[in-house]
Amino acid sequence: MFAPNTLTGLSIIELSAFVAAPLGGLTLAQLGADVIRIDPPRGGLDYHRWPLASDGSSLFWQGLNKAKRSAAIDTATPEGRELVQALIVAPEDNGNILLTNFPARGFLLYETLAAQCPRLIQLTITGDRLGRSAVDYTVNPRLGFPGLTGPQNDEQPCNHVLPAWDLITGHLAVIGILAAERSRRASGQGQSVALALEDAALAMSSHLGLLAEAQLGMQRQKYGNYLYGAFGRDFLTADQERIMVVGLTLKQWRALGQATGLQSELDALATELGLNFSQEGDRFRGREAIAERIAEWCARHSLTYIGPLFEQHGVCWSRYQSLQQGLQDSSPDGFMANPLLSMVIQPGAGPQLAAGMPLQFSAAGQQAARAAPVLGSSTAEILSTMLGLTDAQIGALAQRGIIMCAA
Amino acid sequence: MFAPNTLTGLSIIELSAFVAAPLGGLTLAQLGADVIRIDPPRGGLDYHRWPLASDGSSLFWQGLNKAKRSAAIDTATPEGRELVQALIVAPEDNGNILLTNFPARGFLLYETLAAQCPRLIQLTITGDRLGRSAVDYTVNPRLGFPGLTGPQNDEQPCNHVLPAWDLITGHLAVIGILAAERSRRASGQGQSVALALEDAALAMSSHLGLLAEAQLGMQRQKYGNYLYGAFGRDFLTADQERIMVVGLTLKQWRALGQATGLQSELDALATELGLNFSQEGDRFRGREAIAERIAEWCARHSLTYIGPLFEQHGVCWSRYQSLQQGLQDSSPDGFMANPLLSMVIQPGAGPQLAAGMPLQFSAAGQQAARAAPVLGSSTAEILSTMLGLTDAQIGALAQRGIIMCAA
Repeated sequence: MFAPNTLTGLSIIELSAFVAAPLGGLTLAQLGADVIRIDPPRGGLDYHRWPLASDGSSLFWQGLNKAKRSAAIDTATPEGRELVQALIVAPEDNGNILLTNFPARGFLLYETLAAQCPRLIQLTITGDRLGRSAVDYTVNPRLGFPGLTGPQNDEQPCNHVLPAWDLITGHLAVIGILAAERSRRASGQGQSVALALEDAALAMSSHLGLLAEAQLGMQRQKYGNYLYGAFGRDFLTADQERIMVVGLTLKQWRALGQATGLQSELDALATELGLNFSQEGDRFRGREAIAERIAEWCARHSLTYIGPLFEQHGVCWSRYQSLQQGLQDSSPDGFMANPLLSMVIQPGAGPQLAAGMPLQFSAAGQQAARAAPVLGSSTAEILSTMLGLTDAQIGALAQRGIIMCAA
Repeated sequence: MFAPNTLTGLSIIELSAFVAAPLGGLTLAQLGADVIRIDPPRGGLDYHRWPLASDGSSLFWQGLNKAKRSAAIDTATPEGRELVQALIVAPEDNGNILLTNFPARGFLLYETLAAQCPRLIQLTITGDRLGRSAVDYTVNPRLGFPGLTGPQNDEQPCNHVLPAWDLITGHLAVIGILAAERSRRASGQGQSVALALEDAALAMSSHLGLLAEAQLGMQRQKYGNYLYGAFGRDFLTADQERIMVVGLTLKQWRALGQATGLQSELDALATELGLNFSQEGDRFRGREAIAERIAEWCARHSLTYIGPLFEQHGVCWSRYQSLQQGLQDSSPDGFMANPLLSMVIQPGAGPQLAAGMPLQFSAAGQQAARAAPVLGSSTAEILSTMLGLTDAQIGALAQRGIIMCAA
């Protein structure tokens, strides 16, 4: 039973590099949109970004460009820039959407493009609101996150490795495009939409209450591996496995007490400390004393005992493992049992495990992941269908190095 | 000049707690949708989540529920559940959208609701795909992130503090709703959309190349504060300030060499090591030797010298600071200069700094942040306008404790 994917018919031009903008395009592509990523003939700034496969190709690039089409056009040449402009404004009912993290000036100046195509939606991602470059590694220090991360006794700030703002910004870009496209179907008019990585980070800091906390003069501290504001920490089991245990809600807290049989001991502890552990704040205040009891219990039991017990009681917990271990786990809890993942044949790099779209639409069904394109593999097809160029014209452009057409 | 906000007219019912689902609702609300969050009369599971304001109210809850309306209805009672169901299916052209992280069973069973309202779009967020609870603090250990975070010489895994998967899942929920609503306008049919926090995390791990890297047998290591795969690290200045310096792209790398005057020394270093620092991978391979040179240079100069110099050369860098310091910075670089932020009067808690929507739509203009509602402040209004209940009926429900109407 074939069901079309959710955004089938929508068409996007992406001029991008690195994470946020490519992830936006990837998300739209995995929802069924036709996303054309345009790169220089020898690849963009992110074409060799680590990690690399054994053939030297970038697993990073392949991961972020799944399910797209690739056109290789040299925008350092006037003809290349004209071709890209023509693709952006080419009449198409569900097209004329540009997603980019390149500066919105020169050949990408919104006003110029919109003069030719008032329906144009142009979403531009920048580092900060002034257009300067910024990456997660520079945004985080400005917002204070490294000072809240890492071992409690360590004075040094600790950078976390997940490019969270990039990922959030990429998803915000999709929201911006879908919202602007919804408006366009009512008004017929496009618009430009601006989005800065640092603004996304600042907004999330406000939404999580961190900004108001700072403004009101409260100084957040570093709590190591403890979860802030309730109970949660890592523990070692008798067989030297490490687990994370969380008692955020009262239900989770009670489940932990019941599973470990420590409920009454923990209640007595609370009384002793003048606290009430049914309140999350008091669980945080008493975290070290609580952790001492849980640590003793964990040290007496192996993971093989703890795991099923915690599952049975509905404890909120997990095991510390490497991604490899998660892939090697053949139980129903292992990642390989998740239909989100499938093997794709990545041209050049061979079979590769890849994730599809985590949103599961009942009307579209689960869509399997698709590989990333070979750089320039759709250049000719795109110039032919969208701009009506002949094979001879395409051949001449390729010969002059303005475009690159991969087989 | 008044311009309607981008999603003005769209109407959403939110039954939620904590981060992901409330953030989804917040995002839609800040884009102009009418988002009604329904809570129990004494508040939901997240109503007391830390950080707290001095009056004991939750800055976390206020942060995540800005710009919404609040209805307080007790779904532990049959009448309360019927009221909520009636609100979800109440005929409205741009409504019948339910966003929730509550289990899609019982009174929230999609099939039951859709039988009354085939236009219903129901987006349900779960912890994992099997419906078990999970939070960032349990998902991260399963995916290996704590093992890649923290000081290089530290064997212990290090939890990072940002609930990134929650934030990403919240944005994905908005994408799911906008995509399903786009489909609905073509087909007239709603659908259910499922989204698991762990699936979002697994998908991002694939998109960043981490999943394929692990599957292909490559073991990612812990690199402390170094940026992976290119050059980047933290450094101390002569005046004991700490800065992050990044040379991800060649342009950024050259800017760093020029600003510090170390270009030729670094080129000589590369030759000595048999590396080519114009390639990002070689900058990573030579990172310790590079960092030694940069560290020496930084230790000789103060931040007041380095800052303007780096700006002038376009170096990608930032200063480590607390969020407080960022708010106290009265320069154009300080957060208070950013129009994204404004003061809102948060009932009970007083004036509070809050962020609006980081997406800047040219057709809608910058929308100032709006405060979170008082719990239950729109209960009566919503039951009256959406279900046609009389004041007497509303009064009787309130008296029986099935609803709560705040002044």
